[in-house]
Amino acid sequence: MASADDVEKKYDLITSRLQEVLGGTQLKSILAEGRAPRCYWGTAPTGRPHIGYFVPLIKIADFLRAGVEVKILLADVHAFLDNLKAPLDLVTHRTKYYECILRTVFASLGIPTSKLTFVKGSDYQLGKDYTLDVYKLSTLVTEHDAKKAGAEVVKQVESPLLSGLLYPGLQALDEQYLDVDFQFGGVDQRKIFTFAELYLPRLGYSKRAHLMNPMVPGLMGGKMSASDPDSKIDFLDPPEVVKRKIKKAFCEEGNVSENGLLAFVEAVLIPVSQLRLERLRGEGGFDAQEGAGSQKPFVADDAPEGTVFTITREKGGGPSHYQNYQELKDDFAAKKIHPGDLKASVRDSIISLLEPIQATFLANEEWKQIEQLAYPNLSAKPEPQKKKKASGSLTFEKVYHPPPPGKGKNVQLPSQSTT
Amino acid sequence: MASADDVEKKYDLITSRLQEVLGGTQLKSILAEGRAPRCYWGTAPTGRPHIGYFVPLIKIADFLRAGVEVKILLADVHAFLDNLKAPLDLVTHRTKYYECILRTVFASLGIPTSKLTFVKGSDYQLGKDYTLDVYKLSTLVTEHDAKKAGAEVVKQVESPLLSGLLYPGLQALDEQYLDVDFQFGGVDQRKIFTFAELYLPRLGYSKRAHLMNPMVPGLMGGKMSASDPDSKIDFLDPPEVVKRKIKKAFCEEGNVSENGLLAFVEAVLIPVSQLRLERLRGEGGFDAQEGAGSQKPFVADDAPEGTVFTITREKGGGPSHYQNYQELKDDFAAKKIHPGDLKASVRDSIISLLEPIQATFLANEEWKQIEQLAYPNLSAKPEPQKKKKASGSLTFEKVYHPPPPGKGKNVQLPSQSTT
Repeated sequence: MASADDVEKKYDLITSRLQEVLGGTQLKSILAEGRAPRCYWGTAPTGRPHIGYFVPLIKIADFLRAGVEVKILLADVHAFLDNLKAPLDLVTHRTKYYECILRTVFASLGIPTSKLTFVKGSDYQLGKDYTLDVYKLSTLVTEHDAKKAGAEVVKQVESPLLSGLLYPGLQALDEQYLDVDFQFGGVDQRKIFTFAELYLPRLGYSKRAHLMNPMVPGLMGGKMSASDPDSKIDFLDPPEVVKRKIKKAFCEEGNVSENGLLAFVEAVLIPVSQLRLERLRGEGGFDAQEGAGSQKPFVADDAPEGTVFTITREKGGGPSHYQNYQELKDDFAAKKIHPGDLKASVRDSIISLLEPIQATFLANEEWKQIEQLAYPNLSAKPEPQKKKKASGSLTFEKVYHPPPPGKGKNVQLPSQSTT
Repeated sequence: MASADDVEKKYDLITSRLQEVLGGTQLKSILAEGRAPRCYWGTAPTGRPHIGYFVPLIKIADFLRAGVEVKILLADVHAFLDNLKAPLDLVTHRTKYYECILRTVFASLGIPTSKLTFVKGSDYQLGKDYTLDVYKLSTLVTEHDAKKAGAEVVKQVESPLLSGLLYPGLQALDEQYLDVDFQFGGVDQRKIFTFAELYLPRLGYSKRAHLMNPMVPGLMGGKMSASDPDSKIDFLDPPEVVKRKIKKAFCEEGNVSENGLLAFVEAVLIPVSQLRLERLRGEGGFDAQEGAGSQKPFVADDAPEGTVFTITREKGGGPSHYQNYQELKDDFAAKKIHPGDLKASVRDSIISLLEPIQATFLANEEWKQIEQLAYPNLSAKPEPQKKKKASGSLTFEKVYHPPPPGKGKNVQLPSQSTT
């Protein structure tokens, strides 16, 4: 049994910044037993992962700090099915590349990864038991329910493919076969999650809890063309590329509703900064070893106590220190912060965030080789975007980021946005 | 290379009495190469097989006589999914029971079974390669196409289940995984067959030929209640039960359009009679050993040469001998044959047809045990019909017989008609 205080503290850390929790009582009682909750988050290893991945990863960092056993599902079968023209080998290399990046991100944040495991979909999704369960589910799930469950994450086209109808069932079964207590994802997964809560018990399996992150718009803003390779910042983009891309980002004076930079500050930079501040204060849940890189919070040295983010003014006027995101947002809305100053601060923070990751990459010959194999021809930058896929394109992939404004329900697939 | 004459002869035997052949040229060129064509026919081992099974089996007898390598797929996975409440054990016993019955039927017809193999669906349908192909197909097949393909064999309900949408793809893949040249089935399978012809090549597999039997109405006539256990004649029904059931069969004087007895004469009794006549004439393709039972054609001893079926008049007037079905049909339409006389001839023929099968059963302790395990509680007669299934019921099963008149597209599932 864990102390009530400890349970509350862990529960708060696990659920901080989430938009919604389903099954919180269930989660609390696991913590009260003193058992480490088990969770999974899934991603399909397709295109190069971009720094938008920091959004789920910084949340997973909280889970790990709270002692949660985290499984990251690298959905290689789904990735393969997403593009049948790509050879299976390529998917294998990309799966390894994803694991390298994700592990390195946690290390760069000073988060211990002893309770983190990577599982490939192919480890169990083509097995007999899982397959029989897929068929069993298919005798229980109507087309209507499957379509409803996938409405937010499966591409909505006039003539949907069967893959999109199977998808919610597969993701539900993953919870059982990965043997977890909760699944984590973006709130766009809500219908898939409630589908799993409804159908797993019908197969005699237990209903899992579901923890949902808010949706975060893309860093570069909705007005960027999706076919522009500069629309995403890659984990391995060197400082000068980050500078060029941030310069092109959409950031209008006073406009806080369509502002990918502000959203990134809220969802990633302030949480990372807080993490580093907590680490400096000697709070628990960190690696005994020093994290890689500077580990400096995104706060000026002379900032007052409680500051979590500092905007430096390049054209004079002195820095602005913020204790939370709302203060920054209010200042930007009131045009007290110039877009150029926001961009400069975000740019410098991102460069500092990526520095230890790139240092690890450059020192690791094996990873460098994997990168060449995983993303041939375009090793140092994201692949140019394909044209919009045919309406019949696959919809197996887990999506995380919401569509750019004005694209309604048709979420972008990672393969569209990053491949 | 086979002689042109031999090719024609075999082709004619293989395609005799069929309603439709797709890919006949393909089949002929295999025969011309001198290679034995390979084919498959599938059935789900659910309820007790009834004598309606003679319809496909007498056709398969032709295939075997022509040297075709026949695989009978006992779709145990589908049978299991059809009724998830039944334990897997039960399906295993039923699968064995089906194999016993079917083997015995061929033996009773004097047909060699050295080129006949039985394959269980579970032997390959839950394997990795098959499963990956199911997913691959799901990324190519739209909901619309799957629904269209299953329109004749999948129960049409307001809210269709995913299983019904998956079904056409699974049946297509069976052709590849059973490594056959053609698939045989009722003409109700036509849309499933053309679906397979369209989609297998999209996975890089070859397009198979498809041979289709006409649909044959139930022996007992469309006006019988489907919930009446007497509505089907079981292979193991003793003579007195056959008599009782035939007595109840719908058979109206002069009515040839709704007459299950006439249909059975055309589809089973005349072909069996012809088979036996050919055997007596010393034609090829039969077992060297004597077939079980009397092997007597359904023809009176004093019938003129060329007779294939004799109707004996019980109330005087002497027997009527027919050289083909059309003559019998015309006589019945003209009310020259009384329903009572037709019933008596059909009854006696069926009793003679079942006699060697039942003798084999009674002499085989292992089979008797399997029967008890496969159909407990109701060992000697068909199980009473369940109520009409809920609209969401599974539709995986292969159906063979058409729906009773007036039931439109909603075909009866074997589990409804025999379980």
